[in-house]
Amino acid sequence: MEESEEQKISRALNDLADCELDLEKAENDVQIYRLKQLQSIYEKRDETIKMLPKFWSIVLSQNDDFANYIRASDFKFVDAIEGLIVDWETPNDYSITIEFHEIENVLNPQTIKKHFKFRDDELLSEPVAVDRPVLINNSGGIKSIFDWFAWTGTQGKREFANGADFANLISEDIYPYCVKYYTEAQRDVLDEESCSDSSEGGLITTTDDL
Amino acid sequence: MEESEEQKISRALNDLADCELDLEKAENDVQIYRLKQLQSIYEKRDETIKMLPKFWSIVLSQNDDFANYIRASDFKFVDAIEGLIVDWETPNDYSITIEFHEIENVLNPQTIKKHFKFRDDELLSEPVAVDRPVLINNSGGIKSIFDWFAWTGTQGKREFANGADFANLISEDIYPYCVKYYTEAQRDVLDEESCSDSSEGGLITTTDDL
Repeated sequence: MEESEEQKISRALNDLADCELDLEKAENDVQIYRLKQLQSIYEKRDETIKMLPKFWSIVLSQNDDFANYIRASDFKFVDAIEGLIVDWETPNDYSITIEFHEIENVLNPQTIKKHFKFRDDELLSEPVAVDRPVLINNSGGIKSIFDWFAWTGTQGKREFANGADFANLISEDIYPYCVKYYTEAQRDVLDEESCSDSSEGGLITTTDDL
Repeated sequence: MEESEEQKISRALNDLADCELDLEKAENDVQIYRLKQLQSIYEKRDETIKMLPKFWSIVLSQNDDFANYIRASDFKFVDAIEGLIVDWETPNDYSITIEFHEIENVLNPQTIKKHFKFRDDELLSEPVAVDRPVLINNSGGIKSIFDWFAWTGTQGKREFANGADFANLISEDIYPYCVKYYTEAQRDVLDEESCSDSSEGGLITTTDDL
């Protein structure tokens, strides 16, 4: 029996629906492939960054957006950041690990790992234990960067404001483009130096290569 | 001889520059892998779409942005579009193939393939031969969709306006999301029908599956 025109169309619509599912699956596979390809390069980069003094405090000060999320007085803790790593476990799920060195009488050395997960398009997290610095005064209303570690995405105004945007800023901008920000900051320093001193600094060739 | 602190930093900066090149290469490899993964699915989809009457004129009328690039009177040619295919050859280089059926005494049937290439972030193309419809009146100043086939990206105001945006609209929105636009258009039709007639149309189950 030959297919009617209506049956042909109905079959084509079902085939199209299958194609859409195949495309969605392929895009997800590509994301997984991408994370696998980048992972070993990022691991090598993480090791190299440890050789560069104050790398993360230079990068975090150079990024224009970062300062909008925290208190100005938090920058003394930003200067204590020794390491920052973003680790994507799946395309929907990543952790941010931040290592602080000691600030005598104020902050104990510690490494804090916070995990984030997309549920549909919404980012969620769970509070992680933090050895808070002494002398933090929360009466001003603006939450400290240490409050962000308690952010969950479910408590509304009671928690760190725009915690999801802050996490995404780190995972999608600061961490992947950290070398760009570091190089920009180095150039700015060299530009300032060359105004007062026409001899070139030792770093110029290297930073131009970046 | 032990490395000095300065030598260590210089070596780390060189290693970082290498990592950046590796990341760039990896991202490019991922794009190539993505195109390869999607290609066979798109080919299957192109074949399926041929079974659906007026598919492309429905999709192109449903996309809000498409009409901004062409003349209202061009829609009689849009209705004659039988096929539309975007083929990415590399991540920087794709072609758009459009097949028109005959409009008696006005348009000869023809298949036109136009090739686009990114040079840095700028899209460029070369003119392709077109069997233009009769009766096209260019005195109004707004260029017809047939002028777009001559667009190069190098002739400024003398050629089709925003030809790069129009090409990117087709390659990055209309072609990848054509099934979404088709389904939306079907829903709109069914919504209208269900206002005047409460019985459900035969397509509803199928389009909901999409």
